[in-house]
Amino acid sequence: MSTTAITKWVYTFSEGNARMVNLLGGKGANLAEMSGLGLPVPPGFTITTEANTAYFENGGRLPDDVAEQVREAMKSVEKNIGRNFGDPDNPLLISVRSGARKSMPGMMETVLNVGLYTSTIPGMIKQSGDERFVYDSYRRLITMYSDVVMEKAAGITPKDEEMAVRPQLEKLMDAMKKERGYKLDTDLTAEDLKSLCEGYRAKIREVLGKEFPDDPWEQLWGAIGAVFQSWRGKRAIAYRQLEGIPGEWGTAVNVQAMVFGNLGEDSATGVAFTRDPATGDPHFYGEWLVNAQGEDVVAGTRTPNALNNYCKQPGQNDMLPSLEEAMPEIYKQLVDIRNKLEAHYKNMQDIEFTIGHHRLWMLQTREGKRNGMAAVRMAMDMLDEGMIDEKTALERVNPDQLDELLHPMLDPMAERRTTKLAKGLAAGPGGAVGKIVLNSKRAQELGKKGEKVILVRIETSPEDVDGMHAAEGILTARGGMTSHAALVARGWGKCCIVGCGELDIDYRDRTVKAAGKTLKEGDWISLNGTKGIVYEGQLPVAAADPSINKWYTKLMVIADRTRRLGIRTNADRPEDAAVAVKFGAEGIGLCRTEHMFFEGDRIVSMRKMILADDEEGRKKALEELLPLQRSDFIEIFKVLEGRPATIRFLDPPLHEFVPQDEAGQQEMAEAMGVDPERIREKVNSLHESNPMLGHRGCRLGITYPEITAMQARAVIEAAYAVEGAKAEIMIPLVGHVKELANQKRIVLDVFEQIKAEKNGQPAPDIKIGTMIEVPRGAITADEIASEAEFFSFGTNDLTQMGCGFSRDDAGKFLSEYVTLGIYEKDPFQTLDSTGVGELVRIAVEKGRKARPDLKLGICGEHGGDPKSIDFFHHVGLDYVSCSPFRVPIARLAAAQAALSSQ
Amino acid sequence: MSTTAITKWVYTFSEGNARMVNLLGGKGANLAEMSGLGLPVPPGFTITTEANTAYFENGGRLPDDVAEQVREAMKSVEKNIGRNFGDPDNPLLISVRSGARKSMPGMMETVLNVGLYTSTIPGMIKQSGDERFVYDSYRRLITMYSDVVMEKAAGITPKDEEMAVRPQLEKLMDAMKKERGYKLDTDLTAEDLKSLCEGYRAKIREVLGKEFPDDPWEQLWGAIGAVFQSWRGKRAIAYRQLEGIPGEWGTAVNVQAMVFGNLGEDSATGVAFTRDPATGDPHFYGEWLVNAQGEDVVAGTRTPNALNNYCKQPGQNDMLPSLEEAMPEIYKQLVDIRNKLEAHYKNMQDIEFTIGHHRLWMLQTREGKRNGMAAVRMAMDMLDEGMIDEKTALERVNPDQLDELLHPMLDPMAERRTTKLAKGLAAGPGGAVGKIVLNSKRAQELGKKGEKVILVRIETSPEDVDGMHAAEGILTARGGMTSHAALVARGWGKCCIVGCGELDIDYRDRTVKAAGKTLKEGDWISLNGTKGIVYEGQLPVAAADPSINKWYTKLMVIADRTRRLGIRTNADRPEDAAVAVKFGAEGIGLCRTEHMFFEGDRIVSMRKMILADDEEGRKKALEELLPLQRSDFIEIFKVLEGRPATIRFLDPPLHEFVPQDEAGQQEMAEAMGVDPERIREKVNSLHESNPMLGHRGCRLGITYPEITAMQARAVIEAAYAVEGAKAEIMIPLVGHVKELANQKRIVLDVFEQIKAEKNGQPAPDIKIGTMIEVPRGAITADEIASEAEFFSFGTNDLTQMGCGFSRDDAGKFLSEYVTLGIYEKDPFQTLDSTGVGELVRIAVEKGRKARPDLKLGICGEHGGDPKSIDFFHHVGLDYVSCSPFRVPIARLAAAQAALSSQ
Repeated sequence: MSTTAITKWVYTFSEGNARMVNLLGGKGANLAEMSGLGLPVPPGFTITTEANTAYFENGGRLPDDVAEQVREAMKSVEKNIGRNFGDPDNPLLISVRSGARKSMPGMMETVLNVGLYTSTIPGMIKQSGDERFVYDSYRRLITMYSDVVMEKAAGITPKDEEMAVRPQLEKLMDAMKKERGYKLDTDLTAEDLKSLCEGYRAKIREVLGKEFPDDPWEQLWGAIGAVFQSWRGKRAIAYRQLEGIPGEWGTAVNVQAMVFGNLGEDSATGVAFTRDPATGDPHFYGEWLVNAQGEDVVAGTRTPNALNNYCKQPGQNDMLPSLEEAMPEIYKQLVDIRNKLEAHYKNMQDIEFTIGHHRLWMLQTREGKRNGMAAVRMAMDMLDEGMIDEKTALERVNPDQLDELLHPMLDPMAERRTTKLAKGLAAGPGGAVGKIVLNSKRAQELGKKGEKVILVRIETSPEDVDGMHAAEGILTARGGMTSHAALVARGWGKCCIVGCGELDIDYRDRTVKAAGKTLKEGDWISLNGTKGIVYEGQLPVAAADPSINKWYTKLMVIADRTRRLGIRTNADRPEDAAVAVKFGAEGIGLCRTEHMFFEGDRIVSMRKMILADDEEGRKKALEELLPLQRSDFIEIFKVLEGRPATIRFLDPPLHEFVPQDEAGQQEMAEAMGVDPERIREKVNSLHESNPMLGHRGCRLGITYPEITAMQARAVIEAAYAVEGAKAEIMIPLVGHVKELANQKRIVLDVFEQIKAEKNGQPAPDIKIGTMIEVPRGAITADEIASEAEFFSFGTNDLTQMGCGFSRDDAGKFLSEYVTLGIYEKDPFQTLDSTGVGELVRIAVEKGRKARPDLKLGICGEHGGDPKSIDFFHHVGLDYVSCSPFRVPIARLAAAQAALSSQ
Repeated sequence: MSTTAITKWVYTFSEGNARMVNLLGGKGANLAEMSGLGLPVPPGFTITTEANTAYFENGGRLPDDVAEQVREAMKSVEKNIGRNFGDPDNPLLISVRSGARKSMPGMMETVLNVGLYTSTIPGMIKQSGDERFVYDSYRRLITMYSDVVMEKAAGITPKDEEMAVRPQLEKLMDAMKKERGYKLDTDLTAEDLKSLCEGYRAKIREVLGKEFPDDPWEQLWGAIGAVFQSWRGKRAIAYRQLEGIPGEWGTAVNVQAMVFGNLGEDSATGVAFTRDPATGDPHFYGEWLVNAQGEDVVAGTRTPNALNNYCKQPGQNDMLPSLEEAMPEIYKQLVDIRNKLEAHYKNMQDIEFTIGHHRLWMLQTREGKRNGMAAVRMAMDMLDEGMIDEKTALERVNPDQLDELLHPMLDPMAERRTTKLAKGLAAGPGGAVGKIVLNSKRAQELGKKGEKVILVRIETSPEDVDGMHAAEGILTARGGMTSHAALVARGWGKCCIVGCGELDIDYRDRTVKAAGKTLKEGDWISLNGTKGIVYEGQLPVAAADPSINKWYTKLMVIADRTRRLGIRTNADRPEDAAVAVKFGAEGIGLCRTEHMFFEGDRIVSMRKMILADDEEGRKKALEELLPLQRSDFIEIFKVLEGRPATIRFLDPPLHEFVPQDEAGQQEMAEAMGVDPERIREKVNSLHESNPMLGHRGCRLGITYPEITAMQARAVIEAAYAVEGAKAEIMIPLVGHVKELANQKRIVLDVFEQIKAEKNGQPAPDIKIGTMIEVPRGAITADEIASEAEFFSFGTNDLTQMGCGFSRDDAGKFLSEYVTLGIYEKDPFQTLDSTGVGELVRIAVEKGRKARPDLKLGICGEHGGDPKSIDFFHHVGLDYVSCSPFRVPIARLAAAQAALSSQ
């Protein structure tokens, strides 16, 4: 006697559980889980994802033994609910839905009311006591089924959309409504619907040449096949490519007894969150509609009632009875379920329920989405309640969500009421409201007077920095996520929208046109920098101060004691450093000294230096800059109160300090009292084909050692002036150890000179290190470590050179690369851990081997990206450095990284 | 009883030998070696380089025991030559010279005639029988000694040069000559010189406040100290920095008995090469002067006699008696020495000799410099003579010297007679003569008619390629060694001079001005592209055809059987491929397909494609290019006769195919019948900040897959058309395996289509691989190898991205980097083996690990650089690819690399 292993293709809800997601899909596994908890789930069963795979392997046919297992499972459903599928007297209707491992909302097919046919219609009328309801259900079944099963799954593609079966059926209904003078679908009577169903079936015969099946099982098999087939539909494939879901996974099919919330005043349907998803308040939160189906809640044509008093919205539904008031026992039952689900899942749940003739049915539970504030509060509350441990609490908050707590936000209700003026790229998060100003100088003047302004420019350049700083927000017509405006604004945590191409900015007329309107300079606008939306007028803004949020504070305390990585900030000005320190930065990881050369009159001295013909001329101009730069550093050291500051020496190519346009050159010539031709010649001589790879970074300091000497003097004298100051001098763009050795020699010579001048005064703590941002630097990190006390990875440039992508130009192909899946994410946002990350890994290994106490950090923009921070933790860096407003995010991400390696 | 190890500071010539170069310096070791061979070397001794080190450690004083060892050695010299140092009756004069490990010509000090003082002057007069000679020698000693020992070595630095002692002494002599009405130094009588010496000594007293020492030993110690001191002189330090000679080495001092060739008609001096250094002919070759010192031969004031009949120069010295004729016994003795030296050193020697009163003295022997032809012939002759083995023969020729054999050369005698018009950068070697043409189209027309033209342009662009090809040589006023003109010319092995800033080219007047002359279009000029010199007029040219040189042919046979590396060529046209095959190329390693898009009308189709708004438009334009490109490949496959060709798909950014200037855009608009505004817009939209890192390489093929498909079709159809064709399709600029996978898919799809179209015809051999030129590509080579059948390292771009150097811009700092020693060599000429080389090494290792049969080559310009080839051999590549004219160089360099690892 031999036994054959039989594949189990079908699981009733009582056989499955939440851990069987891969086999049963998310929906099926959770329905089974709820069943297992003893919750009132309409009975049903799941056909596995493996059956889908077998379906495709089998050329689009179900394996033979599936049918038998489905019939068996159906019997169990019938027994459970006490109605029978296809039974004219006591009919059972069922729904057939998809359910993949990961939710793919709306991407696959659903067929409802399966089992309704000529013989069961009378039984259903008797059961529901509502003839109109039954014919309306029948009409819906015919519409869905003919569309999904008879047309799409059969591979019939009509020449144009109007020729498809569904629009043709809809035309019939429209014609009937017109003929009878009805306005709404609900005006149709039972008689109307009955005759419409006849008309539908005739039209289907005409269009598809087939009969709508008048047999419950034929309906069922058709529906199951159609859902399986829809896994390979165009929409589903496109969605999977975007989301990176493998095509091999397949979908499960859930077959479940239909329950109806639209059977009269003792029926209802609703959705709820086990806690308030907007604030995290631990009140049960939701809404419901009497005598309605789930789709009616979503459609928004009726104002839903509140679940309880807590969730009543003043002026919206506070006059409508809550479920607690209307059906107190049902509400109590629902609260019990809510408590059971939270205790079971140990997380906030998003649930759907239906009440049919006063009987409560649970249709779905899943993890509830929540905003940043709510995520933080729920995590801390649940930790307090003993529901979760610290590790889980930390992992509950997506670090990026903290952004919401750190920036002022436009009032979302006001946003909902206001029509948008234009949309651009969300370059700096938060909300900002102010008067339009088109000129940086004017923005600065008005800003000083305390006026709120929004700087609106076609694009910005380093000369606009002061005006940008004075403005509440920045709006540009051109530029991408890495344009000047975007980079600077993100650094400051300032609200910014760039690349808003719909704007027509006229500097001469001083107007901004968009959406057919013409705004003048001085008119108010409001920006939602988190979403990239521009509004006309002055919207209310809610300020942010996370430190007053006790849940946030507690979360940060836990994060800080969990993380291993240090967190520093990228800050060029004392005020930015102060913000970062408030947010928890433990020092400065990148202070870009060149930004100090743009402020006020400094640019004049800088330009004098650039124009100088010889070393003497340059030295004279540098002497003007020395006291200014020294006082900048003094202010920064004071703010840091003994925390270290990594100061990067001059990095950008010199052409960035001179105007490229004729008018600017003319202005510069007048300001400096030189011939414009001389300026033009200098600007031309500074032109480079690939400035990224040109005369910049330490290459400047090597050809003009006097620049390095001046900067070294400024840093060291400032460190002498502030007790406890810790300066880390960072030489940029080092690719060869001898470059570093050359620059280090200059710095050390200056240090010796100053020591002699200071005559025995205790010398400050000065370290000398380098950025690792040139691939050669990473590859030869062992050699470089022999001269460096620290490395800071400049992952922006390392990505540019490592991948060969110019940030300024990559827009032309990089988005396509991400769409095609060549890179999973934009490597400038999330570190390319395989390629650029490998360079980092090599440098860490070689660097530490050559100098075990080498301090390692990262100051590229990846320092504020949670996924990249995880990489930096695991590769063994000592700290990450990011813009001030991302410091809290980095603290949490660093804690999560530490947990992930436990 | 205890013994103390005594340091030996002094070696007589009979104690040393040639292997003791580090201790005795090159000069001392070779003098000792000659002594050891029994050759007539004036006796002497060497104070070691260690003594120099000790001298500096000792604060500029000789170690105590040196003096004693010098006195001992002096005794042995005295005994050997039979004269005594300081002895009034039988005086010995000596020379004191430097001698480092490596020759540092003229960088350190020498003092001659040491030992001449009041008491020995009469003895010397008696010995030489020539009072005037003795006082002249005394005058020279005083001049040298006061300058070198009493002033420089004493650290006295006069305020200006005129205040130094030497010019003041020379003034005295000038005054005496003026007073007595003499024209030449030789007019001075013995009496004059005697009184001049008195005057000199008085002047020294006045200027330096010290007496000129009238004691032989004091003279000697002073001279030895001065030579040691001169190791740290300014000139010596600067020279060592340039040549990379370590400062720790120190110099030795050679003290040697003076011999004089200017004692009368039985005395003489000469220099000789043991074989002809210009041709390699095995005749003894040299020249001599009767009654003269070595400096007289060098000075060139007297025409030297030939050594023998072989070296008589018609019209120069063929009327003067040769040494063989004038002193047959001496000549015979010299021939014996020549034979002995060659047999001993097994190499051609450069010797100096002096004949004093009919006695022959050997003053120096060293390896003789030789030109390329001579190096090849000598190596092969010596191999035939059994003097050296194959390994040595191969190593005797510097691969770069082969260049001289491969290009036509201007007649050097004619060059010597002609004054140069201008000097630029030597961008393409060889000589070229032709009429000036300022316009590429005209150059092409005249070239077709068989006229010899030189294309003279301010700079060239891809549109000039046809004219450049038609010209004999190319001359540009602007651009560096990596400008368009230089790159293209080198690829063709064409004579080219770039960056010739002295030229004033006027396209409107059709003139070229230089050196105060105005040449018109049509005037003749001649270029020496090896040296970068431009001449007016039509100089004679000697054509090159190395294959007729039997020694060259033999050398290549030996090289080919010695090397492991394959040698391919970078060639874009059939005619270039043909040249390379003639030079021994075993296939094409890089065929740049974009060059095919510039020729003739093709640029129009290319521009149509660029201007197209959609895929359809692009496909239409590509269809025009398909047959042209296919026929190019057919021609190339034919020339290769079954050798493989690696074909790189479109690489440069599209903006290179459209004119950047307004006039060009206007022309393009007219030619294509479109609005110039549209062209302008397109050109602007193609502009990139860093085109090197922009939308190019496979990024083009990914965003415009139709380009890849067209190129694949052209290659594969061409391969079908030529029997035995082997095509290797190379995808450029791959940094991520998915980029390659994407492009490979397109190529394979096209291949499948063509296979179907060809209906069973046997498919050609098509391989698909990639360039490794992006650092990320090297780092992730294991992933990329999973999709690639071969890698070819694009070391130009790998250097640009790996080091972060834009070739176009690096001129501003890279030469300074080489001067400062940050990079030893320009990394674009010789591979930076530590950094970029490490990326290559990683990629080789990872690539081979993932795919053991991965074929590895290199097609950057380093493929023709001998030092880089050595690296590529050792890192394990399969082949190098270089421009056609460097193929022989690469063959030899590859053989030498193979030998160096034995």
